Amino acid sequence: MNTICKLFNIKYPIIQGGMVWNSGWRLASAVSNNGGLGLLGAGSMYPEILQEHIIKCKNATEKPFGVNIPLLYPDIEKHIKIIIEEKVPIVFTSAGNPKIWTEILKSEGIKVVHVVSSVKFAQKALDAGVDAVVGEGFEAGGHNGREETTTFCLLPDLKKHISIPIIAAGGIATGKQIYAAMVLGADGVQLGSRFAASRESSAHQNFKHEIIKSTEGSTQLTLKEITPVRLMKNDFYNEIQKAYQMGATTDELQKLLGKGRAKKGMFEGNLQDGELEIGQCASLIDKILSVEEIFDQLIHEFNQVGLYSL
Amino acid sequence: MNTICKLFNIKYPIIQGGMVWNSGWRLASAVSNNGGLGLLGAGSMYPEILQEHIIKCKNATEKPFGVNIPLLYPDIEKHIKIIIEEKVPIVFTSAGNPKIWTEILKSEGIKVVHVVSSVKFAQKALDAGVDAVVGEGFEAGGHNGREETTTFCLLPDLKKHISIPIIAAGGIATGKQIYAAMVLGADGVQLGSRFAASRESSAHQNFKHEIIKSTEGSTQLTLKEITPVRLMKNDFYNEIQKAYQMGATTDELQKLLGKGRAKKGMFEGNLQDGELEIGQCASLIDKILSVEEIFDQLIHEFNQVGLYSL
Repeated sequence: MNTICKLFNIKYPIIQGGMVWNSGWRLASAVSNNGGLGLLGAGSMYPEILQEHIIKCKNATEKPFGVNIPLLYPDIEKHIKIIIEEKVPIVFTSAGNPKIWTEILKSEGIKVVHVVSSVKFAQKALDAGVDAVVGEGFEAGGHNGREETTTFCLLPDLKKHISIPIIAAGGIATGKQIYAAMVLGADGVQLGSRFAASRESSAHQNFKHEIIKSTEGSTQLTLKEITPVRLMKNDFYNEIQKAYQMGATTDELQKLLGKGRAKKGMFEGNLQDGELEIGQCASLIDKILSVEEIFDQLIHEFNQVGLYSL
Repeated sequence: MNTICKLFNIKYPIIQGGMVWNSGWRLASAVSNNGGLGLLGAGSMYPEILQEHIIKCKNATEKPFGVNIPLLYPDIEKHIKIIIEEKVPIVFTSAGNPKIWTEILKSEGIKVVHVVSSVKFAQKALDAGVDAVVGEGFEAGGHNGREETTTFCLLPDLKKHISIPIIAAGGIATGKQIYAAMVLGADGVQLGSRFAASRESSAHQNFKHEIIKSTEGSTQLTLKEITPVRLMKNDFYNEIQKAYQMGATTDELQKLLGKGRAKKGMFEGNLQDGELEIGQCASLIDKILSVEEIFDQLIHEFNQVGLYSL
């Protein structure tokens, strides 16, 4: 049996990334009901909102689901408290040091997975006692690592150095890519962009349409001086590029970014001024489908892959 | 039969990238003798040197081999003339517009392949009449595309849009990665870094040792204002970063780069001041082996890949 399926007690080793503004109870429960692992994206939720989503998710599925928490979230203690109280069985942590919360969560019987962008961070997560790591490549939408290691190189490198299960993330939108990730060393996969463009995602309809319209080259990693982030090349992105050309300081860039850009873009559908965080694989996503249709397609494409020979 | 093997009349669809300062007749003939396709790297050769290497390569192998020419090479007319005179059967072109030379080469019965970093450039190559494209991802060493599309995303995107054979390049150093590239849509693969670190490569011993010592995160894409290039993070790289922090102009960066940096680093073995062009997969290369040993390993690793199921 697949090690990730066993770890989470799920049918398919396919995890839906817990993305800000995209991943509420509707998306997470739909993914879990279809045999994957749905994750609520706590990064864009106030504690009381998170609790509401957890309760609604429990009502919508009897299957396991989890929560993704960025470890730099200011109200993280409240998030952790709610997760423990509500007996959420699985937590994915990202963007921060896994040392602080892993032990506390694990002592409550919660499975803990940490998102890493490099071998070095994977080793730290391993030391912190996590059950698995998500190895997230340069292709991934949203916040990203400084080494810029791609999924194609990160997976074999993690496999070479890390003994716990590896979940591949970054650039995966098709069943063939899931297969390729497994050949490269992954035990399971995490897809963000593909599910952001699903019917059940809480992303704004404008953003979903922008995803399916995008082509190769539509995204770029930028704002490396603040936190590297992959986003769509829209008006806001062009403003950033202009600021760079003018020799903007980090403070000026931070000011340009401001607050609430991601919400404005992804949740409110302002395609010009909003921050549209999305992966490089957006170009491979052509239709807004239901989670059920996405699972059918991914599994069909995966099973179409035959044996290759040299 | 594999379409790339048929196109080039070779046993394995494994091509050795025609890299500057690494790819002389010893390397190219060894790769061809082992069933792959060896390429001479004309980018670092004066016309008379190229001719000498072609003649030596012919003497060292009866198998097909080719030449890689950067299309921006100043003396390109002389290179093309020599290739035609010496009846080299295969030419890979890169870094420039394939329109100008493809027809002339093809009218001489030469197979022409163009290296592309995006779907847009692949379509242009297709229009120019090339026999195949090399789809080179962000992971690749040396000069690189502006879209920063990775091998993991570029291959399925090329497969979706392009009907001619696709050779995957960028980040490939192992047999499993060759397999994954095929799952993603490649018909064949081109490996640079792996062969740069071979016994037969003309790279300086210091550089070869630096490759096998490197770890994940050892390389970075930089100098994007001039031509994006992936290189090892050595003293020269740190100087570039310092220049960026000081707000250097493109002219100042160009001056810092100067002339002959690549030769100094890769060929003369100056690890501090030289430009050490290498791919992100350098971290996966652990030993300096002969080309024969590399082929044995690649094919063994490839054949170890079994069927995956969901």
